[in-house]
Amino acid sequence: MASNQKFGAGIWHFANYLDRYATDGYGDHRTLLDMIDMAGSVGDLSVVDLTWPFVDPGLTHEKIKAQLAKNQLEVIGITPEIYTRKFMKGAFTNPDAGVRREAHELITDAVAVVKDFGASYVKLWPGQDGWDYPFQVDHHNHWKLAMDGVGQLAAENPDVKFVIEYKPREPRVKMAYDSVSRTLLALEKINLPNVGILLDFGHALFGGESPADSAQLAIDYGRLFGMDVNDNFRGWDDDLIAGTVHPMELFEFFYVLRKNNWEGVWQLDQFPFRDDHVEAAKMAIEFLKRVEKGLDRLDFDALQEAQSRHDAVAAGRLAREALFG
Amino acid sequence: MASNQKFGAGIWHFANYLDRYATDGYGDHRTLLDMIDMAGSVGDLSVVDLTWPFVDPGLTHEKIKAQLAKNQLEVIGITPEIYTRKFMKGAFTNPDAGVRREAHELITDAVAVVKDFGASYVKLWPGQDGWDYPFQVDHHNHWKLAMDGVGQLAAENPDVKFVIEYKPREPRVKMAYDSVSRTLLALEKINLPNVGILLDFGHALFGGESPADSAQLAIDYGRLFGMDVNDNFRGWDDDLIAGTVHPMELFEFFYVLRKNNWEGVWQLDQFPFRDDHVEAAKMAIEFLKRVEKGLDRLDFDALQEAQSRHDAVAAGRLAREALFG
Amino acid sequence: MASNQKFGAGIWHFANYLDRYATDGYGDHRTLLDMIDMAGSVGDLSVVDLTWPFVDPGLTHEKIKAQLAKNQLEVIGITPEIYTRKFMKGAFTNPDAGVRREAHELITDAVAVVKDFGASYVKLWPGQDGWDYPFQVDHHNHWKLAMDGVGQLAAENPDVKFVIEYKPREPRVKMAYDSVSRTLLALEKINLPNVGILLDFGHALFGGESPADSAQLAIDYGRLFGMDVNDNFRGWDDDLIAGTVHPMELFEFFYVLRKNNWEGVWQLDQFPFRDDHVEAAKMAIEFLKRVEKGLDRLDFDALQEAQSRHDAVAAGRLAREALFG
Amino acid sequence: MASNQKFGAGIWHFANYLDRYATDGYGDHRTLLDMIDMAGSVGDLSVVDLTWPFVDPGLTHEKIKAQLAKNQLEVIGITPEIYTRKFMKGAFTNPDAGVRREAHELITDAVAVVKDFGASYVKLWPGQDGWDYPFQVDHHNHWKLAMDGVGQLAAENPDVKFVIEYKPREPRVKMAYDSVSRTLLALEKINLPNVGILLDFGHALFGGESPADSAQLAIDYGRLFGMDVNDNFRGWDDDLIAGTVHPMELFEFFYVLRKNNWEGVWQLDQFPFRDDHVEAAKMAIEFLKRVEKGLDRLDFDALQEAQSRHDAVAAGRLAREALFG
Repeated sequence: MASNQKFGAGIWHFANYLDRYATDGYGDHRTLLDMIDMAGSVGDLSVVDLTWPFVDPGLTHEKIKAQLAKNQLEVIGITPEIYTRKFMKGAFTNPDAGVRREAHELITDAVAVVKDFGASYVKLWPGQDGWDYPFQVDHHNHWKLAMDGVGQLAAENPDVKFVIEYKPREPRVKMAYDSVSRTLLALEKINLPNVGILLDFGHALFGGESPADSAQLAIDYGRLFGMDVNDNFRGWDDDLIAGTVHPMELFEFFYVLRKNNWEGVWQLDQFPFRDDHVEAAKMAIEFLKRVEKGLDRLDFDALQEAQSRHDAVAAGRLAREALFG
Repeated sequence: MASNQKFGAGIWHFANYLDRYATDGYGDHRTLLDMIDMAGSVGDLSVVDLTWPFVDPGLTHEKIKAQLAKNQLEVIGITPEIYTRKFMKGAFTNPDAGVRREAHELITDAVAVVKDFGASYVKLWPGQDGWDYPFQVDHHNHWKLAMDGVGQLAAENPDVKFVIEYKPREPRVKMAYDSVSRTLLALEKINLPNVGILLDFGHALFGGESPADSAQLAIDYGRLFGMDVNDNFRGWDDDLIAGTVHPMELFEFFYVLRKNNWEGVWQLDQFPFRDDHVEAAKMAIEFLKRVEKGLDRLDFDALQEAQSRHDAVAAGRLAREALFG
Repeated sequence: MASNQKFGAGIWHFANYLDRYATDGYGDHRTLLDMIDMAGSVGDLSVVDLTWPFVDPGLTHEKIKAQLAKNQLEVIGITPEIYTRKFMKGAFTNPDAGVRREAHELITDAVAVVKDFGASYVKLWPGQDGWDYPFQVDHHNHWKLAMDGVGQLAAENPDVKFVIEYKPREPRVKMAYDSVSRTLLALEKINLPNVGILLDFGHALFGGESPADSAQLAIDYGRLFGMDVNDNFRGWDDDLIAGTVHPMELFEFFYVLRKNNWEGVWQLDQFPFRDDHVEAAKMAIEFLKRVEKGLDRLDFDALQEAQSRHDAVAAGRLAREALFG
Repeated sequence: MASNQKFGAGIWHFANYLDRYATDGYGDHRTLLDMIDMAGSVGDLSVVDLTWPFVDPGLTHEKIKAQLAKNQLEVIGITPEIYTRKFMKGAFTNPDAGVRREAHELITDAVAVVKDFGASYVKLWPGQDGWDYPFQVDHHNHWKLAMDGVGQLAAENPDVKFVIEYKPREPRVKMAYDSVSRTLLALEKINLPNVGILLDFGHALFGGESPADSAQLAIDYGRLFGMDVNDNFRGWDDDLIAGTVHPMELFEFFYVLRKNNWEGVWQLDQFPFRDDHVEAAKMAIEFLKRVEKGLDRLDFDALQEAQSRHDAVAAGRLAREALFG
């Protein structure tokens, strides 16, 4: 039986990158149209997440839509860039009310882009909202601003979904939305149906979470609106190719999704700095297809029974044999 | 002006310890009466937290009370031992319903001990509640049991306070109550006024939290029922002497407490494996007194102003000069 | 073709454990004879590593030998217990010269045990040699003692091999022999042929090393005298079942061994605190046999070619397909 | 008595930065001349370390020298940029021999710049030399290239000093020169007098080292050619303001330098992304002066005596009282 699973990727998977050392970048600048073609050439991608404003500011929506159509791609999310220079001291929590207003306006504009592209959500990734040093911020005020900024957007745009992608840190030394639990605390306070979590597998690993447990928790709160995968060594958000370091925990993550009948797109959030971008995507999807087959093979009842006894050996063997075939 | 700040310590500060290598222990077994005398000899301690069942099972409450009185000590909390062999697969989340019931009974008995000693709370430290391996537990059921077990106790004993001391891990490879945010999620669900958090400074550090931020968050939810301090290198719960590694973050932690008019006991949770136990307590309290003086010296308004601009340099200088004198 | 690979385990794999919380242990005390029977019941073990003095002090070598013979087991190494109470401030680096002498005598006695059992080496695991706090030790003197203690033993016993098992920390907050490179620095200084490294896969992971790289380095210095495997989450020496968390890096580790024609025993160093001890060993060895088959399937030339281009995708695919079959 | 201690900084302390998110940078591009003026305005700096090729390629050495003279600054080191796009797969270890040659030529040209400016050393910071994935490189060949590249330069330029600045990782997921011990292993193999270590305090912290111990080790091998300081939270190379997080370990680091009569420049390697660059330097130097005074106050004999007993409490109190005054 052919799988109906849809795959996606952040469009930045196909960009070239800068960092504080290689300031001339890990390759030449690419246009958005080129990146869309590259995404299309992976062959298994159905959707992309687009940062906005688009990398080529002059490009019309029509041209982008045509390029997407040519590659049989749709837009799943729009990610407003609330982490650039203007927002280096925060978007929602910026000490300057004017900058906070600019962030609000930028995201509000992104809502229109979501609608125009028929996308599913605005993705909020508040990577600059946080602090660097002890004593730098008033933690009460800081967290209140972090929640209020999201809450206001959700209230003003009840017909659009927002997803928060939490991460422990980077670029800020410490991010406000740092974990699944902290984000859920905020969502409980905001108490609106149109804000959820986009769970990044690698961010959960990096934060010392068990990604499968994080997924279950977000599902139990009705807030798992999206997810993406990659890999890392638990000490940083390396955005490596999914499955290369932690295949078993990746498998457990998808097991939890299937057990809960969570049916969304399996997205990639990878940064192949030094590798062939298309091949890096293909390698990840090859593994995700193996995961899918592994789930088909896995005896859910037997696993549940082993888990009811907390029997790590029996449960682990079932999982291992299902994945390794 | 003399300080009225009260200091306390877990009685285990004065015990000798075992670990998986030095199975013959880091010193001879000590009786509870001896440990109480040692606590008294520190000279600055007003209260102790007692694990229960007491280390000497035959000892009467009267004898313990007399020994405490002799040393001008009171009992602040009772910590039922829900992390020994019987509970090695969990207390609240044990796969065996009979063991869960035993945990419930043990803690219920500890309630009576709290009342008899006029203590402030039952401390719950569910160090075995969690998991070790991917696929070992059903995360939904596991977390539900973790919450239900605490909720039932709080509901059955409305006249007694319970505090949960969260920690990322140890002895379990991953603990269910692993962070301030996860614990607050549970407390929101449990929704009873008599359950709160005992915030261990070192556990927050170990979990990648900023302890000052964790304290503010717990206070904002009205759940900071207690706290204790120590130090570590952020990678493990070393329970070192407070102030020896992270003096600035310790200072920020107490700054948040004072700013919020949080007036509780400053407790020590240290494990001086290889050091003189009484001197280790004294060294910590010397530093806590320096912190107190630093807070007296600190210009709260100027700091608040610097924080309103997220000015790490200005805020950091104010804090440093206040603490270093 | 049947494999000739020999497997082994530390005898403590079959012990029950204590820690600072479950001071009553994770199960009843077991006799050495029982543990040897358990090791035998795994079915794939050929050798064991024995801590010494033996857990049952009254036991004669003859009885142990008979029990080993009954289970078709030989002794690969003797591990003198230089990390118990007496040595809590260090064995080689203890501030008390008398204790250092006791460590020397204990290890010297272990040399005789090695000879009597026809074992391959004395294993030195100096888990208490190190420090806990800034300013606690004079680092020059400390490291000199750490090297001199090992050097003296190696010089006095030229007919016996010694292996050092390094680890970043635990029980000491920081261990002197903390990494493969530091240990090799010492071995270069000691400059004797009969001291090498026992490389624990999990200790390398825990220390931020790539275990395959550590193995290559030790081999390049002619110092890889032994190895054992397990798994962990990189933040602590969890001693979990091998292959459960990091199968790809474990595979790379054994790839390096085979590429260098390193032909020694594949040993387990696992601590199944809460799991069935025999099943935990079996599960690990099942995976090691899969690793062996994976190495047979792996195209070494193609991999070498991909590595010559640093092509992570091509190399990773080759490895993944070989291991996953 | 006035201090004669010289202070320095990497010129990048006064630059603006990019990262993979804020690709438009944390401020406008600055010219080298501007940065030199800013360095001068700190008031306590005597030397700077210059990356090369200079940020403004057209600038003559004369103009730079004049600007330095105007600010009473000298050049301590030249840091060739062997971590930019061209070298993204490594400088010394690049799979392409042509790129390795380019790195060699660039560094050779930097030797001439060192001589022209009367600087003390060429600084080698091989941030791209390493790997990202399991199986990506042949570890034997990789490490050999890492050593040979440095060795060749040192052999060809016996009249110039080279310093290697090790770091666990970033930008490469794992760096070859990752620790003090690994670097010393290489230096022992290279066996030339003109290559040493530039020890970055924060890199040692990040690598799980005790920076004071690392300094002692490098000194004991006669290889501590330079040093710089900053701070971080042990999980990443944050390059925060020195003294803000780990004042005690910074104090211990300088204690080891003084005890060994190491008399070099105390340099800053800070990246004040979001802070006032000049104030960030001033704040650090204020603390370094406090460290200097603390060392004057510290009773070295009493400390040595406490260390001879591994008495963490006595030693820690002496250090704390000396630093806190």
